[in-house]
Amino acid sequence: MTWLDLPADSLFGVDNLPYGVFSPAEGAPRAGVRVGDLVLDLAAALDDPVFAQASLNPFMAQGVARWREVRARVTELLTQDRHRAATEPHLHRLNEVTLRLPIEVADYVDFYASEHHATNLGRLFRPGTPPLTPNWKHLPIGYHGRAGTVVVSGTPVVRPKGQRKPADAEAPVFGPSVRLDIEAEVAYVVGTGSALGESVAVADFAERVFGVCLLNDWSARDLQAWEYVPLGPFLGKSFATSVSPWIVPLDALAHAWVAPPPRDPEPLPYLADAGKQGLDLTLEVRLNGHRISNPPYTSMYWTGAQMLAHLSANGATTRTGDLYGSGTVSGPREDQYGSLIELTAAGAKPLELPDGTWRTFLEDGDEVTLTGTAPGPSGSRIGLGEVTGRILPERPEPPAFWRT
Amino acid sequence: MTWLDLPADSLFGVDNLPYGVFSPAEGAPRAGVRVGDLVLDLAAALDDPVFAQASLNPFMAQGVARWREVRARVTELLTQDRHRAATEPHLHRLNEVTLRLPIEVADYVDFYASEHHATNLGRLFRPGTPPLTPNWKHLPIGYHGRAGTVVVSGTPVVRPKGQRKPADAEAPVFGPSVRLDIEAEVAYVVGTGSALGESVAVADFAERVFGVCLLNDWSARDLQAWEYVPLGPFLGKSFATSVSPWIVPLDALAHAWVAPPPRDPEPLPYLADAGKQGLDLTLEVRLNGHRISNPPYTSMYWTGAQMLAHLSANGATTRTGDLYGSGTVSGPREDQYGSLIELTAAGAKPLELPDGTWRTFLEDGDEVTLTGTAPGPSGSRIGLGEVTGRILPERPEPPAFWRT
Repeated sequence: MTWLDLPADSLFGVDNLPYGVFSPAEGAPRAGVRVGDLVLDLAAALDDPVFAQASLNPFMAQGVARWREVRARVTELLTQDRHRAATEPHLHRLNEVTLRLPIEVADYVDFYASEHHATNLGRLFRPGTPPLTPNWKHLPIGYHGRAGTVVVSGTPVVRPKGQRKPADAEAPVFGPSVRLDIEAEVAYVVGTGSALGESVAVADFAERVFGVCLLNDWSARDLQAWEYVPLGPFLGKSFATSVSPWIVPLDALAHAWVAPPPRDPEPLPYLADAGKQGLDLTLEVRLNGHRISNPPYTSMYWTGAQMLAHLSANGATTRTGDLYGSGTVSGPREDQYGSLIELTAAGAKPLELPDGTWRTFLEDGDEVTLTGTAPGPSGSRIGLGEVTGRILPERPEPPAFWRT
Repeated sequence: MTWLDLPADSLFGVDNLPYGVFSPAEGAPRAGVRVGDLVLDLAAALDDPVFAQASLNPFMAQGVARWREVRARVTELLTQDRHRAATEPHLHRLNEVTLRLPIEVADYVDFYASEHHATNLGRLFRPGTPPLTPNWKHLPIGYHGRAGTVVVSGTPVVRPKGQRKPADAEAPVFGPSVRLDIEAEVAYVVGTGSALGESVAVADFAERVFGVCLLNDWSARDLQAWEYVPLGPFLGKSFATSVSPWIVPLDALAHAWVAPPPRDPEPLPYLADAGKQGLDLTLEVRLNGHRISNPPYTSMYWTGAQMLAHLSANGATTRTGDLYGSGTVSGPREDQYGSLIELTAAGAKPLELPDGTWRTFLEDGDEVTLTGTAPGPSGSRIGLGEVTGRILPERPEPPAFWRT
């Protein structure tokens, strides 16, 4: 229990305690822990300068023993009455602070770990061939994305421009994307890295990964379709990737671990499961406030532990602040798809929203919000927070004489 | 002229003056300028703390006007006799310092801008289809690589492990790469970035890009072939990318700018050339000391200015420290190919070295060195330095009980 006045069904009770970075009304950005609709200023409450910084990276770099120590201490402060007087002054109201990108992103990788999503996209992008490529069930397919365009929830997304080739055209045209999409994902944040030439074993996942957040991998499908052969997605993805402001530590997910789906064929030994490393997370996708999907993370073929083992199997360094996304989370049912290209069959079946409008892809002014929850203790739920973004119209090029 | 005792044909005369980061025998890493076989300690010589740091990023972020001011001042110090007494004490012998990675890499992108290379690889990777994909002559194909594994010349390269699928096998196997290759490239370093939603025009190249270096994009062809469809190269590339320690500023390349090859079809307007933005650089690839190729950079289809305009066309942020490679530089002739997969026709035509040994791909202990030069004033040449690396055997996995 806690001395805080929290509703019993709060998604941000003392079993959650996710980490973020906030700017108070006055003063520099600093690390905080969310509880209810409040943020605890860690630098002040714990009197530790590692938290008086604009990213969680310095704290994450201290390692898993320290993460557990801090979580235990924060739990103590928020649950024992004797700490109330000293702790209360360091709590800020959420609506009086600005939430910031919680980590300094080192490398960003995005995987493709949902069998349903990969199958759906294979059918749409490569009709007439088997939807899953021959490698898909042998390794978690992934690629590097642009770390510099990972932005925090709430950051507006300017409609990207680029080349696309209309089906009936001889040559590509350049202009704003006309097939702007979302991808509902879960992402993992690496807390402590590994040296060049090393690999991180599947079993070592929990001592390397600090926590999880939600991620929207905005995707310009027309740009992507034209550019992605042979070296993969580039401008179709690199214009923006939004993340939720709260990193939920793995220890808060104690009740969420589940066995992943059966795999056939058996993965190679370096990808063998080490316990229940699947996660029972439920996502929700809202478009302009209307729920359009509930992707179930339990259906993901590859686990976060397998993704990390794979990405470091070749000896690649991992670093504090590395971020890797699961890829779009799509379940088997149509109301569980995590992208508009799937929800609308690539635009062939527009989606009617409850406000009477129809959508294929995103229009200017549209706002997309992903939320997620996980099982907590005793049938409760904990929240992953939300990641939201609104589409702004393409930015016009300034005339040449404006440039200096 | 200079008061320094430099040979007339030095590749590092006062017309070059590339920037790097070095550690003196004692003391912290700092920025320096190479002249002959000496390094000028900039923090000491210019009495400016921006150079007393372990990367060039703080200096690069100051912008093109400042880059020109510093270059003019360093030239003055090294050419005017009256500065000799004050400057000489700040010169270190190259062989008494340790050269470090000169920049903190923000995002790393690798392009695929050589028509000869893309054609050769298309034939090898996708036999029976047109070697250039339909998009290739419309846009500079590129993808994001792993920033965290960009290493400085001299760093040993541990043979990567990963999945590969032998042609006659049902399923992939996991183990050390048996087709370890190089890619000889030129890379561009972004000095000043651009905001989210902006684009960098082709004409703005020289005020954004700080300089160029050499890059070896080590490639495990067997890992790459198995993994790269549909999302592009990942573990086949991410284990290590080596760069030369000296960043040659664009102003040192004044005599190297040339018109790029004719393009057909005409690129879209946002990729239209703005002057002569091709570069007349000559590379050399040495394997265990034996020259095996001389890739000519003049043959590159896309320029560095077009690459930057393309990668930011969708509004992606660029940042100080962004690094982008040209892709393998291959000329039309067999002795101008920039990778072993091309030089040996994917292993079908082994290469005989002058020491009597034969190579298809790299063996443990092999050392690869890329060097490069550019035209300087009055028929002279300036050096891009070198990037070298030796292959170490795969690292064995420690037994489970070694792990803590």
